[in-house]
Amino acid sequence: MDTLKVIFLGGVGEIGKNITAFEYRNDIIVVDCGSAFPSIDMPGVDLVVPDVSYLIDNIHKIRGFFLTHGHEDHIGGLPYLLKQFGIHAPIYASNLTLALLEHKFKEHKIENVNVNIAQKNTVIKAGAFSVEFIKVSHSISGSFALYIQCPVAKVFHTGDFKIDYNPIDGEMIDLRRIAELSKKGITLLLSESTNIERPGYSMSESTVGKSLYNFFVQNTKRRLIVATFASNIHRIQQIIDLAQKFERKVAFSGHSMHNVLEAASKIGEIKYDKNQIVDLEKTKKIDDDKLVIITTGSQGEPMSALTRMASGEFNKVKITDNDTVIISASPIPGNEKLVYNVINNLYQKGAKVIYEALADVHVSGHAFREELKLIYLLVKPKFFIPVHGEIRHLKQHMEMIADLGHNPKHMLMPQVGNKIEVCSKFMKRSDNVTAGNVLVDGAGIGDVGAEVLRDRRRLSEDGMLLVIMGIEQGGTVSSVDVITRGFIYARESVDLIEEIKRVSINSVNGIDLKVQVDREILKNNIRKNLRNFLNKKIKRSPMILPIIIEN
Amino acid sequence: MDTLKVIFLGGVGEIGKNITAFEYRNDIIVVDCGSAFPSIDMPGVDLVVPDVSYLIDNIHKIRGFFLTHGHEDHIGGLPYLLKQFGIHAPIYASNLTLALLEHKFKEHKIENVNVNIAQKNTVIKAGAFSVEFIKVSHSISGSFALYIQCPVAKVFHTGDFKIDYNPIDGEMIDLRRIAELSKKGITLLLSESTNIERPGYSMSESTVGKSLYNFFVQNTKRRLIVATFASNIHRIQQIIDLAQKFERKVAFSGHSMHNVLEAASKIGEIKYDKNQIVDLEKTKKIDDDKLVIITTGSQGEPMSALTRMASGEFNKVKITDNDTVIISASPIPGNEKLVYNVINNLYQKGAKVIYEALADVHVSGHAFREELKLIYLLVKPKFFIPVHGEIRHLKQHMEMIADLGHNPKHMLMPQVGNKIEVCSKFMKRSDNVTAGNVLVDGAGIGDVGAEVLRDRRRLSEDGMLLVIMGIEQGGTVSSVDVITRGFIYARESVDLIEEIKRVSINSVNGIDLKVQVDREILKNNIRKNLRNFLNKKIKRSPMILPIIIEN
Repeated sequence: MDTLKVIFLGGVGEIGKNITAFEYRNDIIVVDCGSAFPSIDMPGVDLVVPDVSYLIDNIHKIRGFFLTHGHEDHIGGLPYLLKQFGIHAPIYASNLTLALLEHKFKEHKIENVNVNIAQKNTVIKAGAFSVEFIKVSHSISGSFALYIQCPVAKVFHTGDFKIDYNPIDGEMIDLRRIAELSKKGITLLLSESTNIERPGYSMSESTVGKSLYNFFVQNTKRRLIVATFASNIHRIQQIIDLAQKFERKVAFSGHSMHNVLEAASKIGEIKYDKNQIVDLEKTKKIDDDKLVIITTGSQGEPMSALTRMASGEFNKVKITDNDTVIISASPIPGNEKLVYNVINNLYQKGAKVIYEALADVHVSGHAFREELKLIYLLVKPKFFIPVHGEIRHLKQHMEMIADLGHNPKHMLMPQVGNKIEVCSKFMKRSDNVTAGNVLVDGAGIGDVGAEVLRDRRRLSEDGMLLVIMGIEQGGTVSSVDVITRGFIYARESVDLIEEIKRVSINSVNGIDLKVQVDREILKNNIRKNLRNFLNKKIKRSPMILPIIIEN
Repeated sequence: MDTLKVIFLGGVGEIGKNITAFEYRNDIIVVDCGSAFPSIDMPGVDLVVPDVSYLIDNIHKIRGFFLTHGHEDHIGGLPYLLKQFGIHAPIYASNLTLALLEHKFKEHKIENVNVNIAQKNTVIKAGAFSVEFIKVSHSISGSFALYIQCPVAKVFHTGDFKIDYNPIDGEMIDLRRIAELSKKGITLLLSESTNIERPGYSMSESTVGKSLYNFFVQNTKRRLIVATFASNIHRIQQIIDLAQKFERKVAFSGHSMHNVLEAASKIGEIKYDKNQIVDLEKTKKIDDDKLVIITTGSQGEPMSALTRMASGEFNKVKITDNDTVIISASPIPGNEKLVYNVINNLYQKGAKVIYEALADVHVSGHAFREELKLIYLLVKPKFFIPVHGEIRHLKQHMEMIADLGHNPKHMLMPQVGNKIEVCSKFMKRSDNVTAGNVLVDGAGIGDVGAEVLRDRRRLSEDGMLLVIMGIEQGGTVSSVDVITRGFIYARESVDLIEEIKRVSINSVNGIDLKVQVDREILKNNIRKNLRNFLNKKIKRSPMILPIIIEN
C-alpha cells in the first residue's frame, strides 16, 4: 500500500529538539530542526542536537527544510546538520526565521545556503509534496502552521501556536483558511501539546502591554529594567512603544537581544525611532526616570546580563534601590532556582522586582486546553498524533481528543525514532529508525557519550584519587604518591593520605613483583582495597586511578 | 542597655536549615536546628548543616533546644551538632518531633540525650527565659509556635504554621491564647514568610480528603498508589481512613514512610486497624481494587520508591495500566524536573497520573498572605522580623507589614550571621557572628569546602587529562602516557591522544632536563601548552594533571 511515512526524529516525549521528516516514495521533506539544552545529567555538554542518521542515509531524497518559526528548539540544530553533512536542500521559512538563521550561519561559517522566504499562504512544491504556510500566533513573530499534501495524505501540522484575538501585529491565526482546508478532508493532524495541562484559554499578548502600562504609571520616578526573551519581538515592541509614550529612552542589553533586534529591524519586524535608542554604555548619564533597559536573562542564565546585574558583576548597569525590575517571562521547567536566585539578588540590592508570581507580566505563546480543542474540532482530522511535549502532555492530549469523540484507534502516541505510516485508509506504526540525542561539547559533535558522561558525574560526586606506585626492577615498592582532586582537602588530611598509602602498599603484599604478574591485577587490587577502605572510613567513593611505574 | 540578642544562624534568606539563638546575659536558648539539601553547585554533598561555632564558643550558656516541629529543615542538623560537640542541654519538643528525633539518634548512635515532651501551653523555664508552646497547624502534626519571655522582651516566634479552620486533629491554631498574650504587649514578632507570594488563604488539609474521596469513587476497579511526604501524618491518616471506607488494604512503601509511621503510631498520632495493613511484599496477591499503596517519592528523589516504580526498577511494585497514581504533594522549587520525569515514566507505563497541575490533591502547610496579616494584626508587636524564606519572601513580608501600618523603622531584614538586639525601647543590629553552611559528605562533616567543590564542578564539566612523563637521568624523555576520564572517548580519539603527547613533549623543548630545573615549571609548561592546544582544537578545558617520573 502506498503510504506517507511520518518520521519522528525529535520533538515528542521530550522538550526541545523538534524535527519531523515526511517521506513519500522518493521524496523527503523535513519540518524544523531544533536544538535542546542539556539536562542536568549531561555535565559539560553545551547543546543537544538531533541524531539525523536517517536523513544522511536518505540524503538524495531530501527536497527541503520547512521551518515553522525561529525558536532555538525548532532551528538550533540546523547549522550542525548542514555543517556536518553538507546537505544542500532548500530552506523555506519566514523572513524573521531566516534573518535569525543567517546570524547562525555566519557564526558557523556556513555559506551558500539555499534560503527562501515564505509568507502566509505561500505554497511550495517539493518533489511529490506541496506545503502551504498558514499564519499562526506564537511568542515569536513569523510563525506558521504547515499544510502538507502528498498523493496519499493531507497533513495539518500546527507548529507552535496560540489563538490570540488581539495580536500585536493585527493579524490573527488564519482560522478561516484552516476551516477551508478541513472542508476538503484532512487525513492527519499533528498538534502541539505544551499547555495541555492549563485549562481555558491563554491570554492575549496585548494584555501584557496593559499590565506593563500600569507599571510605567506607578514607577514614574524610577529606572525601569525589563527582562524578556530576545525573540519575543512583539513584547519588545510593546515595551519600546510604552517607553516612547512615557518619554523614556531605551537601551538594549545582552548579546542575543542585540542580534535578534538587528535581524528584526532590518526586515521591518520591529519599528522604533532610532533617536529613542541609547547605547547601554551611555545610560549612566541618563536620569533614572528617563530610561528603560530591555535585557536578556529572564531565565536566570548564569552568564546573562540580568544575572550579572543582580550579582553586581555587570559594569554597565549597577542595580540601585531606585530600580524596578520586571521579569516578563516564566521560568522554563528546570530554571526555577536560577530565576529565584536572580530575584533574591535583585531584592538584596534594594530593587523592586515584579515577576509572574506577583503580577500579569507574561503570557504563554502556546495554546491552552480550550484552544487545542478548537483547532482539533476545526481541522476534524481522520487521524491524530500529539506532538511537542513530554510524555504526560502527549498522553493527556490524546485523552482530551478521545473525550471529544475521536476514535481512540485513530490516534497514536509517538516516540523519538518512530516511523508511522499514514494514508486515507489507516495509520499504523512501521519500523523504527535511528534517532536520539547528539551531544555538542565545545567543538566536538557526538564525541561525548554515555561513558564520558558517567565518568563526569562520578568525578563530580566524590572527585578522584591518583595513586602512583613506583616498583623497582628488584621487585620492591620504591615510592607511593597520592594526588587528589575534588575529594578532600589533601593538605588538611595528612593522616588520611598516609593511610591511603599504607593500604596501597598492603595491596601488593604477597605478590612477587619481580615476576611479571599482570599489572592490571595489581591495579585492581589497589583499587578494590582503597574502595573498601574509603567506604568504611569516610563513606565516599572517589574515582580511583592506580598508576604503576616500573623503575 | 540590657537587651535580648536574637542570633540568626540559619533560616533567613535561604530555604532550609532553620536555627535561631536567643541570648540574654548568661543564658542562651536555641530554637530549631535544621538541615538543608545541597544545591546543584555542591556536587557530591549529602547534607548541609548550620555552622554553630557561636554556640560552641558559648556552650556553657546553652539552657535548652526548643524545636517547633519535626521537619528536617528544623531538626535535621541536631544530631550532627550533638555528636560533634557533645552538647548536653535539654531538648524540648512535641511527642512526634521527639519520636522522629529518637530514630535519628539511633542512626547516629547518640545516647543519653535529655529529651522532654512539650504539649500545648507547656511552659519551660530555661535560665532567664520562659518558653510557652502554642499549638499551630502545619503539614506535620505536633507543630508549635513559641512565646519566649526574658526580663527585657517578649517574643512571639510563629514557627511554620497555617490557619486551618477544619484541621484533621480537630484542634485549631490557638488564636485565643495568642490574643491573650498580645494583650500584655509583645515586643517582637518573628513570622514565617514561605507563602507571602500567594494571595488569599490556604485551603484546609481536610479539602484534600474530599478531593481524594472523589478519586476513590472514580477508580473503583483500579489499584491506587498515593505518593506524599512521610511526615504528613494527617494526609496519611486521611488516605488510610478512605481505604477503610472503600474496603481496601493499605501497604506502605519507602524507608522514611516506615520510620515515620512506626514513630507516629507508637505515640498514637496515627490510628489504624492493624488488619488493614499488608506488607508490601505480599501485595501481588491482592486484587488491584482492594489495595492502596502509600509511598514516598513525591519529590522525584532518585532513590525513592515511586521513582524506582516509575522506571521499572522496583521489584515489589510493577506499574501497570490499571494503576492510578496520585502525587499528593507540590514539587519543592528545584525538584520540578525530577517530579516531571517520574510522571512521564508513569504515563509511559500506562498508568493514570493525578498531580497538582490537574487536581486539588495537595494543600500547602504554610500560611498565605491573608493568614500572615491575621497573625501580625493579632500579635500587634512593637518590632517585626520576617523569618523562614528566601530574600524575596522576607522583603515582601516587610512590605506587606509596612502596608498594614507598621513603622518601617521598627522592622529589620535579617541575614545569616546577624545578631540583633531588642528591648522594649529599640531594636538594632549588633555585630555579626560566624555562621553559614557546613557540608556533610559521607562520614565527613565540614571537610568539603570551596576548593574541593570547585574541583568537582570543573571535573564534571570537561573531565580530566593525566599526562605521565618519564624522564631519564640522562635528561631525555623516555615515555609519555595519557589517561583521560570524562573528557573524550580515548579509544576513538587515537589521533587526538597522539597530538596531546606531541604537545607535551614539545613543552619540555629547550629545557635541559639533566639540570635540576624546577619540576613545577616543567609541569606548568605542559599544562599551559595543553590548555591552549585543547581550547583551540576542540574548545574544551579538562583538568590537566602532568606527572613527572624520574627514572
